[in-house]
Amino acid sequence: MEPPSEGGTDALFPAVPRGPLDAWRTRASFGWKELALFWEGEDVLRLKKTIFSTLENDPLFASSREGDLPREKYQELSFLRLKRVLEYEFLSMAQMLESPIKALVLLNCLGMYDWSLATKMFLHLAVFGSTIYLSGSERHLKYIQKIYGLEIFGCFALTELSHGSNTKAIRTTAHYDPSTEEFIIHSPDFEAAKFWVGNLGKTATHAVVFAQLHMPGGQCHGLHIFIVQIRDPKTLLPMPGVMVGEIGKKLGQNGIDNGFAMFHQVRIPRQNLLNRLGDVTPEGTYVSSFKDARQRFGMSLRSLSGGRVFIMTMSAVNLKLAVSIAIRFSATRRQFGPEDGEEVPVLEFPYLAATYALDHFSRSLCMDLVQQQRGLQGSSQSAWQAELRREIHALACAGKALASWTAQRGIQECREACGGHGYLAVNRLGDLRDDNDPNCTYEGDNNILLQQTSSYLLGLAGGGPGGARIQSPLKSVDFLDAYPALLDQKFTVTSLQDCLDDSVPLAAYEWLVCYLLRESHQKLSQEKRSGSSNFAAKNNSQVYHCRSLALVFLELTILRKFCELTRQPGVLPTLRAVLQRLSALYGLWSLSQHTALLYRGGYFSGELAGKLIENAILALCSQLKDDAVALVDVIAPPDFILDSPIAKADGELYKNLWNAVIQNSKVLERASWWPEFSINKPVVGSLSPKM
Amino acid sequence: MEPPSEGGTDALFPAVPRGPLDAWRTRASFGWKELALFWEGEDVLRLKKTIFSTLENDPLFASSREGDLPREKYQELSFLRLKRVLEYEFLSMAQMLESPIKALVLLNCLGMYDWSLATKMFLHLAVFGSTIYLSGSERHLKYIQKIYGLEIFGCFALTELSHGSNTKAIRTTAHYDPSTEEFIIHSPDFEAAKFWVGNLGKTATHAVVFAQLHMPGGQCHGLHIFIVQIRDPKTLLPMPGVMVGEIGKKLGQNGIDNGFAMFHQVRIPRQNLLNRLGDVTPEGTYVSSFKDARQRFGMSLRSLSGGRVFIMTMSAVNLKLAVSIAIRFSATRRQFGPEDGEEVPVLEFPYLAATYALDHFSRSLCMDLVQQQRGLQGSSQSAWQAELRREIHALACAGKALASWTAQRGIQECREACGGHGYLAVNRLGDLRDDNDPNCTYEGDNNILLQQTSSYLLGLAGGGPGGARIQSPLKSVDFLDAYPALLDQKFTVTSLQDCLDDSVPLAAYEWLVCYLLRESHQKLSQEKRSGSSNFAAKNNSQVYHCRSLALVFLELTILRKFCELTRQPGVLPTLRAVLQRLSALYGLWSLSQHTALLYRGGYFSGELAGKLIENAILALCSQLKDDAVALVDVIAPPDFILDSPIAKADGELYKNLWNAVIQNSKVLERASWWPEFSINKPVVGSLSPKM
Repeated sequence: MEPPSEGGTDALFPAVPRGPLDAWRTRASFGWKELALFWEGEDVLRLKKTIFSTLENDPLFASSREGDLPREKYQELSFLRLKRVLEYEFLSMAQMLESPIKALVLLNCLGMYDWSLATKMFLHLAVFGSTIYLSGSERHLKYIQKIYGLEIFGCFALTELSHGSNTKAIRTTAHYDPSTEEFIIHSPDFEAAKFWVGNLGKTATHAVVFAQLHMPGGQCHGLHIFIVQIRDPKTLLPMPGVMVGEIGKKLGQNGIDNGFAMFHQVRIPRQNLLNRLGDVTPEGTYVSSFKDARQRFGMSLRSLSGGRVFIMTMSAVNLKLAVSIAIRFSATRRQFGPEDGEEVPVLEFPYLAATYALDHFSRSLCMDLVQQQRGLQGSSQSAWQAELRREIHALACAGKALASWTAQRGIQECREACGGHGYLAVNRLGDLRDDNDPNCTYEGDNNILLQQTSSYLLGLAGGGPGGARIQSPLKSVDFLDAYPALLDQKFTVTSLQDCLDDSVPLAAYEWLVCYLLRESHQKLSQEKRSGSSNFAAKNNSQVYHCRSLALVFLELTILRKFCELTRQPGVLPTLRAVLQRLSALYGLWSLSQHTALLYRGGYFSGELAGKLIENAILALCSQLKDDAVALVDVIAPPDFILDSPIAKADGELYKNLWNAVIQNSKVLERASWWPEFSINKPVVGSLSPKM
Repeated sequence: MEPPSEGGTDALFPAVPRGPLDAWRTRASFGWKELALFWEGEDVLRLKKTIFSTLENDPLFASSREGDLPREKYQELSFLRLKRVLEYEFLSMAQMLESPIKALVLLNCLGMYDWSLATKMFLHLAVFGSTIYLSGSERHLKYIQKIYGLEIFGCFALTELSHGSNTKAIRTTAHYDPSTEEFIIHSPDFEAAKFWVGNLGKTATHAVVFAQLHMPGGQCHGLHIFIVQIRDPKTLLPMPGVMVGEIGKKLGQNGIDNGFAMFHQVRIPRQNLLNRLGDVTPEGTYVSSFKDARQRFGMSLRSLSGGRVFIMTMSAVNLKLAVSIAIRFSATRRQFGPEDGEEVPVLEFPYLAATYALDHFSRSLCMDLVQQQRGLQGSSQSAWQAELRREIHALACAGKALASWTAQRGIQECREACGGHGYLAVNRLGDLRDDNDPNCTYEGDNNILLQQTSSYLLGLAGGGPGGARIQSPLKSVDFLDAYPALLDQKFTVTSLQDCLDDSVPLAAYEWLVCYLLRESHQKLSQEKRSGSSNFAAKNNSQVYHCRSLALVFLELTILRKFCELTRQPGVLPTLRAVLQRLSALYGLWSLSQHTALLYRGGYFSGELAGKLIENAILALCSQLKDDAVALVDVIAPPDFILDSPIAKADGELYKNLWNAVIQNSKVLERASWWPEFSINKPVVGSLSPKM
């Protein structure tokens, strides 16, 4: 390791090898280490470096992540790696509770290595663990203590074979039997089998199971959560009455054993009900501080906001990796172009900007969530806290949808930008795409989640002008106080120079949210007037109205957060300049997807407005050309973690790729089945069917 | 098999099993068998049925297509299946030459089963074979004769490790040595290794190799094609001087062995030059009827149009399969919604319409191509033929891009529409996505290909008004004769009813192509005036101008073809009605992606225009609700071929899925590595790194 040279922080950074990318690095307008320090902070940089170099030096992590491994082998390896990570104890349980952001950094670092490892750990520690912690009581603390040392292994069993998104339709039952003080967990048929549950397929010993609570008198109190033992920890064989198995190969994340379970009259002790929101006395009386079953149900699912924010960070990480691969590839590939080789395609730059914007926003939302959950544990439910929970829910729902889709599209663009080499598995864009894809689906299908956010917005604006002042704890909707006056705004920019500022898309977005609010309101009441059911009215208003409303609101919120960051006092001028370009590019590029609405609603008029936006995007991409490689250096993990021969930090793209290819097993050998060609010749037409 | 009941054509159709989808089928406004007959014709239906039922009855095709197979095993299986297909000889060589459309049907049927099989066969028979046939002469016929019986196995070796799209930069050399009458094939370094070549990795015995021809005097005559023996057919071991291997796992199509090859001074006979366009005499004199090397180069790549049209049909097939899966799933899933269960989400309907539109266009372009190539073999090069070749080239370039992207997006939408179950490999949407993805890249990167089409259009309109009349053999550009007068058109529709007709998007598209032509011209000349190089001018005009121009032109052409079909005399009124809805939906939905331009250029003004388009799309989707399942019955292959438990024709989605899951190998067994959980517990923190 080199001695620190720049004020002692150099030890936080990996040494950057020399190579063809240097030419780009020397052109950057800022110091990438300064930006990394500003972006992550010294503590996080140190943690990341420790994690990355520890993994790199451990042979257990040296073999392929998935590659050509059979699924069972890959799942074993993922489990062994999970154990090893616990042995390393990069953060103690106490440190994670004290700083959930660091826990998030740890998970994201492991995810940069391989999402199967990170998600497996997240499901066990965070989802299983925090469900018990948040929904249980003291009598369940014994489970928490067993989690960290892998005495038990957990999973979160909500969805069923025939019901994914519609959690209210869960059909697993829990009947209380006062004679033995037990619940009887039962799946009425295979369509009610728990399905898709991560860790359930081969490893879970315990599950938190969502089931309808039925009392001896026949009354149903709705969905409650129960701890159900699935397997014997000593043998990993299923418990009596539990039929449990793995659901099979998935498009990605195959290191995780997703599973199904059917329960046949499985008896569990009364104490296994997670009883924070409602309990059953030994005699069989139901007691709850919540009168409203709907409200209780909402509370019992509150841990899902955490999952959605985590998915936002996963998506941002996937974008970081994909964009790093595509930009390093583009900067060093041989291609069409002028002889001097100084052209780098700029198609991926908007995704680079989106990466920074989403990364910042998802971390900031995570901190808000931590605050909110800490608040919950302290005092009782204040109105402010309820409002904060609703706002975070709205931001996490549409945020998860926007982030996962942006990553999905970005990875695909990056794959195509890398041409055929992007289609070669060793370069990792396929795994990123595959591992990112379910982010669009689990923890709520994106389209369904967007309805949650648009309902939140439509509810707020319901008062209309003259009503109560619109204010929210995180201030994301405060601008709506100026609705509908905002609708009179117009686009007034007339020069390209004036269009390069992030205030331009900010203003346009505020107008756009108001416009879509009005349009959605109108569409919904028009549907209702025409006699549509509530369901049909919502459905028909979804595609072109509520869905866009939720997405546009999130884009505005993300952009605003990014702008605020760049305008903080004390940001180094060189950093501020490049960050503002990213912020403006993200804003304008996102906005440009809505140009049709801007014209239609009259915010834009004439040819110039549309052309200015396009030209401003091109101009910002062009301004970022010399900085793109350095911006990638800030977000890319070390080569070992990035794991893409076409995108190593030295930029020796072809040497590294060739090396990776010829080191494949049996690469130069003839196929074992060569006699099938050489000896067993087909007799053409010998089996010709009669037509 | 049931006896024919409706006029004797029933034997052409598989029996449709009873089940939950029946409720939808009875509501359809047309007879699906009538549409199938109209769409495919009796001959093709019979051929398809023979192929599908033959495969279904052969155990070699019964095992999993890819599933969990190791790559080598999957490649072996693909090769064995290829041999078996030759033994079945569904079409003789003579039949294929007589009716290339039937050959295409055969390939597409095999592709519906598994693209690795179809592509492997296509590369050997059609690409390798037709390159020799079209670029060689009588002395090469001996190779053709050996292809069909698998005496030799072929591949097409054009791209190199560091040069994919830029074929002019190929660096493999062929030096002529008159003393032995041989060419010396040589790769100067590993960056010039042939790379990505399908069939080269493990099976090819011969390759058509593109190399720069150098004469003894030192003169280079540019790219020529040589037959180079790669392996000994008796042993499948490489020939001396050839280093050949497989490039490794890809994101899809892993049944094909893509490979690399480096040539170290490999000597081949003079006769192995494919000499239709240029030849070398024994003494070493170069002779060619083409004076212009550029023109010769263009001719030598003409076989690529065939590949691109084939990719269009592949994309259409992939859309057929994905849309069939998503619509059958949506029609039978349990979900949010009114109790009567009659709601089917309509998100996938535009892709259903696109499937029909692309299917029709790609077949029609294929027939044009066959005509053109037959013309070539007959008389000499007429101006009309040259014009036809250019037009087909332009349509195939942007058509390949549009079709592959539409399929890519459509498959992703269908995956998401099927929720988690879409992410389960057994339901096949992952394989479809993976196998379709390279369609965006090979035979020319989509963005590069779009430049070819926009250049064609910009070249045509170069004359401007008053110039020569614009006419093309396929009439795709004849409407441009009215340019720039077309630019004065406006959108004048004011009622939803009037907007439901395909003439609305047709007129809008004609305006749009003209508008983008003008904009592209202006942008290009503005770039040139500002001193940009030719390369930079093209690049800067690409994103927002030329790229859109090419796509919009293709959308117009596809829509026009579809409209013409629905307006043919003699179409049954019930069929005409549903086809016109599809045609209007495809047109309006495609057009709606360009609403911003329609407003910006003044074709649209006011809120109504944009709203009408959206409402018309929703109205058409709603009108198609009762027909969607029947429209899928027309395009979906039998269950065995479709191979997706959630989309079987009986609609028993959950039963079929559950069945597929619990039949997986070892599904209920504990993992072999269970002691890693039960016995070898981690000691948390035991390896804690110092930070």
